[in-house]
Amino acid sequence: MNDKRPTQLMEHDMFDNLPRGTIVIEDLEVGMTRHLQKQVTDRDIELFAEVSTDRNPVHLDDAYAQDTIFEGRIAHGMLTAGLVSAVIGEQLPGHGTVYLGQTLKFMAPVRPGDMVRAEVTVEAIDHAKRRVTLATRCLVGDTVVLKGEAVVLAPSRKFD
Amino acid sequence: MNDKRPTQLMEHDMFDNLPRGTIVIEDLEVGMTRHLQKQVTDRDIELFAEVSTDRNPVHLDDAYAQDTIFEGRIAHGMLTAGLVSAVIGEQLPGHGTVYLGQTLKFMAPVRPGDMVRAEVTVEAIDHAKRRVTLATRCLVGDTVVLKGEAVVLAPSRKFD
Repeated sequence: MNDKRPTQLMEHDMFDNLPRGTIVIEDLEVGMTRHLQKQVTDRDIELFAEVSTDRNPVHLDDAYAQDTIFEGRIAHGMLTAGLVSAVIGEQLPGHGTVYLGQTLKFMAPVRPGDMVRAEVTVEAIDHAKRRVTLATRCLVGDTVVLKGEAVVLAPSRKFD
Repeated sequence: MNDKRPTQLMEHDMFDNLPRGTIVIEDLEVGMTRHLQKQVTDRDIELFAEVSTDRNPVHLDDAYAQDTIFEGRIAHGMLTAGLVSAVIGEQLPGHGTVYLGQTLKFMAPVRPGDMVRAEVTVEAIDHAKRRVTLATRCLVGDTVVLKGEAVVLAPSRKFD
């Protein structure tokens, strides 16, 4: 672990994705971890529906959603996945990262108003290929709602 | 293949995700396919940045993005993935589907103004578990920009 952020800063980023920037592959270490927390709002769900064209009523229609196994509206799974990619693209490795792949397992629903914590942890580093494997997961409270693994091409001091 | 939509309707849905609805597992067949086409706009990228909190300048800053290997701004990968989930959630199997998992390989960038075609095809059906495996891919012209596989719990006539 090599997390140099002071505790105070980690508390300040409760509701946003900070600090932003780049950690080049030469500075990455297995076990290094970054996260963000964000409340998923009705506005987020509406905007995601517009961008994706996914207007499935389980996301948008209270009466319909009440009658599903979710017993209420839920956020689009890819909206939650977007929070994972935000940690990767903004923090770990951050700007300059090329996203190669991601696996996603949707474990539990995210509901409007839920505070989602997206966590990314370095699992493996292939310096020859500049490839980094990251464990990714999202939680609502203690419930893991999304888990998976990302593979990225990390920025390097040598190529910048 | 069991695509009963007339050619005329398939042309009409060039720019949106139609027809919407449900295909229950009893009516699914291996090889069945559905798609949407959507142009990814600057507004989409801006809205996705807001929802995800991913304001990586490769998506938003022309001058920064010009100096990257992409030589220009690109859409968030999860925005493109959202189009895949829209086909699944709206068409195949559609409303009532429970998204269990998705793999994503990002093959090539999507740029503002690109018309993305998201395609979903039934690969395997497990009637006992109500699980359906779907091949998923997105294209810009003839270039595959995203490919992967989805696993869903399909709606059933017996449970509705």
